[in-house]
Amino acid sequence: MAENSDEINECKAEEETEKNWTRTSHTHSFLESLTPSDREGNSSTQSSHRLLAYSDALISIIATVMILPVAHTKLEDDEELKESLRQLLTTKIAVYLMTFLIVTVAWAAHIRLFQVIERTDDFLALLNLACMMLITFLPYTFSLMATFPENILGILLFCACVIVIGMIQAVIVVYGFSHPFLLNDQIQMSDNQDYYKWHILKVIFRVPILCLIAIIFSFIFTPLSYVLLAIVVFLPYISQSVKWCCRKATGQQEDSHDAMLLYSYHPNEPLSKERVEAFSDGVYAIVATLLILDICEDNVPDPKVVQEKFNGRLVEALQEFGPEFLAYFGSFATVGLLWFVHHSLFLHVTKTTRLMGLLNTFSLAFVGGLPLAYQLTHEFPHNSRNELEAIQISCAIIFLAGVFQLAIWVVALFGERAALHPYVRYSGRDHAFMFAKLALYPCVTLGTFVLTCFLTRFSAPIFHLMEITVPFAFLLLRLLVRASLALLRLLLSPIRRAVHSARGENETYRPLSEEAT
Amino acid sequence: MAENSDEINECKAEEETEKNWTRTSHTHSFLESLTPSDREGNSSTQSSHRLLAYSDALISIIATVMILPVAHTKLEDDEELKESLRQLLTTKIAVYLMTFLIVTVAWAAHIRLFQVIERTDDFLALLNLACMMLITFLPYTFSLMATFPENILGILLFCACVIVIGMIQAVIVVYGFSHPFLLNDQIQMSDNQDYYKWHILKVIFRVPILCLIAIIFSFIFTPLSYVLLAIVVFLPYISQSVKWCCRKATGQQEDSHDAMLLYSYHPNEPLSKERVEAFSDGVYAIVATLLILDICEDNVPDPKVVQEKFNGRLVEALQEFGPEFLAYFGSFATVGLLWFVHHSLFLHVTKTTRLMGLLNTFSLAFVGGLPLAYQLTHEFPHNSRNELEAIQISCAIIFLAGVFQLAIWVVALFGERAALHPYVRYSGRDHAFMFAKLALYPCVTLGTFVLTCFLTRFSAPIFHLMEITVPFAFLLLRLLVRASLALLRLLLSPIRRAVHSARGENETYRPLSEEAT
Repeated sequence: MAENSDEINECKAEEETEKNWTRTSHTHSFLESLTPSDREGNSSTQSSHRLLAYSDALISIIATVMILPVAHTKLEDDEELKESLRQLLTTKIAVYLMTFLIVTVAWAAHIRLFQVIERTDDFLALLNLACMMLITFLPYTFSLMATFPENILGILLFCACVIVIGMIQAVIVVYGFSHPFLLNDQIQMSDNQDYYKWHILKVIFRVPILCLIAIIFSFIFTPLSYVLLAIVVFLPYISQSVKWCCRKATGQQEDSHDAMLLYSYHPNEPLSKERVEAFSDGVYAIVATLLILDICEDNVPDPKVVQEKFNGRLVEALQEFGPEFLAYFGSFATVGLLWFVHHSLFLHVTKTTRLMGLLNTFSLAFVGGLPLAYQLTHEFPHNSRNELEAIQISCAIIFLAGVFQLAIWVVALFGERAALHPYVRYSGRDHAFMFAKLALYPCVTLGTFVLTCFLTRFSAPIFHLMEITVPFAFLLLRLLVRASLALLRLLLSPIRRAVHSARGENETYRPLSEEAT
Repeated sequence: MAENSDEINECKAEEETEKNWTRTSHTHSFLESLTPSDREGNSSTQSSHRLLAYSDALISIIATVMILPVAHTKLEDDEELKESLRQLLTTKIAVYLMTFLIVTVAWAAHIRLFQVIERTDDFLALLNLACMMLITFLPYTFSLMATFPENILGILLFCACVIVIGMIQAVIVVYGFSHPFLLNDQIQMSDNQDYYKWHILKVIFRVPILCLIAIIFSFIFTPLSYVLLAIVVFLPYISQSVKWCCRKATGQQEDSHDAMLLYSYHPNEPLSKERVEAFSDGVYAIVATLLILDICEDNVPDPKVVQEKFNGRLVEALQEFGPEFLAYFGSFATVGLLWFVHHSLFLHVTKTTRLMGLLNTFSLAFVGGLPLAYQLTHEFPHNSRNELEAIQISCAIIFLAGVFQLAIWVVALFGERAALHPYVRYSGRDHAFMFAKLALYPCVTLGTFVLTCFLTRFSAPIFHLMEITVPFAFLLLRLLVRASLALLRLLLSPIRRAVHSARGENETYRPLSEEAT
């Protein structure tokens, strides 16, 4: 983390101390050093690492915030979870998912920007804070839009925010290109800086201009402006994905210039791995603690109530909240273990692409819904239809979160050579172990889901058994994988020996992984 | 961030690919690589960086959670803010501050542990998650204690959590020392690993044993167990601080062995700078977004109400929430700018000590109270006594948060030589600029406080003017500092020239900063 900044600062420190050493007196070097030409802007240049970490933390919190209105919607236990869920699904959950997507789109734009501007100074840091303030306001404008679809205020606010964000980004780009030492080394070295500058500005301005048109249309015909906004957000991704698929299908070689270029919206466009990790950490952390936020606030019983209703017996009073505590520990453990899988996966991934980032976003969006699902599983009486449905929804959410993690791994395996460490690419225990880690949650939840369909009466015990066994399964996974591989080797060894002797002369053959290094 | 892990993984990758290259066939290397002796534990060793970042995010959220019950306490506007505040101060704010302190103590213990165990594997990662789950539960046990001081359940739960956390930490230490490649290089090289191991275990076990005694006492005489708990948490700090002050006062040379040793509770004991930054980022991020969490949930008007009460005019309906939005933007900007100052400060700090960590904790604790204070400033009618008090409390909170940041800088300046980059230590524009940044908020809030005392009728406009001007002051600070220094130089130049000529032979004198490098 601090390595970059340390390097820069050490260089600075050395220069400056050298300067100081040549001074005649330290009491006056304070004023002596203030020559106007004194490394004008450079002296304030900083590594942007912490700025980005803070931005990631802010954006990840904002992305997951809109699950709170969903979680706090009290469902009545009138055997009509389906009905109330339908209501929820159409508004609040949709708002949550759309917010998550839109905020992550803003986050991706932020990554793209700071892959070009690699160093910052105070001015950029302050501009970035202003940008963050507007991004954190986006979810609110979005929920206004969802609650009052006919009223144009939501659209106006949303577009205004997006336009101002775009303008701030443009100012950052212009400022960055006028202080080239702030830029990415690749661009700093390049001859056609101007080309890069205009290309980036063009991409950045596309969104505000479309928003401006959306504002104009909103006064004439509101639905059209919604369509326009959807286009603003998703078109680059869709068009590039289609192009990419066509290329893959026709086997056409990709334009490497296009793929290398930042701001290309190409699925293979690199995405800072560090920032994907930081963002994911933020989401996992806030989701893991969402329930304790509520518990700390709501589940401390009133002393008077305890005195009157329970004769001062606090333990009895707390038993009322038992389900909430169970839900907390259950969801914390599940989110924690999903983080653990994510962490293991990204230890092996060397390079993240835009496509992997998108899959990661989908996985995180489902993780965000987990605490809510867990809370539901404990809110209804045993053996009610609602309970069964809540349990099945929980399983489905964990399953999808896990499956999208698995998809990242598959993309890394079958995508570019450089995306994975060679030693987990094709062979070895690490490969099998990683696969087992990624497959554990999807398999277990699929099994639980199927079981609860048949054994409806025992759905709750099955689910709780799953909750309890999974952490231990993770603890013992290495042993399990080793045992099953040993078994596999035992079974395959006669075949292997046969093959081995048949191709004895092929000793010098080297595996594919060589090419990957 | 990823540098460490990359290094480790690259080494692994190289080793493994080399191994693969010598294989006869890549189709079977999958099973061939599974010799039982195959680098037993080593193959799963990971850099602990991301694990720690995630832990920091979790702990920082938990530390600030207890401000929510405070923030959600509705104050009646009956000109008795003082009365209701007194109630608040005695319970909820105390719970918040105590939770913040206790959680940061747990966090400091976590840092200490992972300064010894520098690499992790899956087993340690899972143990750490279990530890985190218990730490996130601490605030709840604490609020039980505060609400039911006579009931021993709170103490029992708290002590049980602390004992289990201690046991998990002990398991981590024992596991770490039995797999020495996980340890800190310094300890890994050292001859007396056993001495370190027992010293660390002794320190770790001290707390659970005292908690066990507290549990026993809680059945006999409850208040005594509270005293015991207070001792558990604060005694090491107090005793070491007193010792340190005595040493400083008597001018006695410090025992360098003692200061170097990890787990010494010495104020100069190093504290990972990276983790202090990550924790601070987490707190600043969650505090900055606390108000938007509420706004997104509560401040979307009901479509029916808008239709009936405002004839469908959404803008009018939203005007009711105007103060909340103002409070949000105000507190986001202030928290953001305090983060900005913190960020600038830690760019110059090269090494953080335990004492600086403690000051940082105090600063963060006040930052946590900011959103609440800002919300209060907008909740009361203009020119009421409550409004004035809310404004003054806000000023006091910002002032204290800023002053503790300034204290970190002072400690870094007057503490160990190695704690600051030499080029900001004694001289130069960077030094003056940093000081101006740190002093801006304390000075401005002190000014606002004093002004509101005299001009009570204009307190709100003065406060809002302060809110608006401060961000611009930060933008222009570099210019302001440069201008004032130029003025200073102009004023001092005749004196300087006189001194300069008087000590002309002292040309070779070198400033103190030389020694610091």
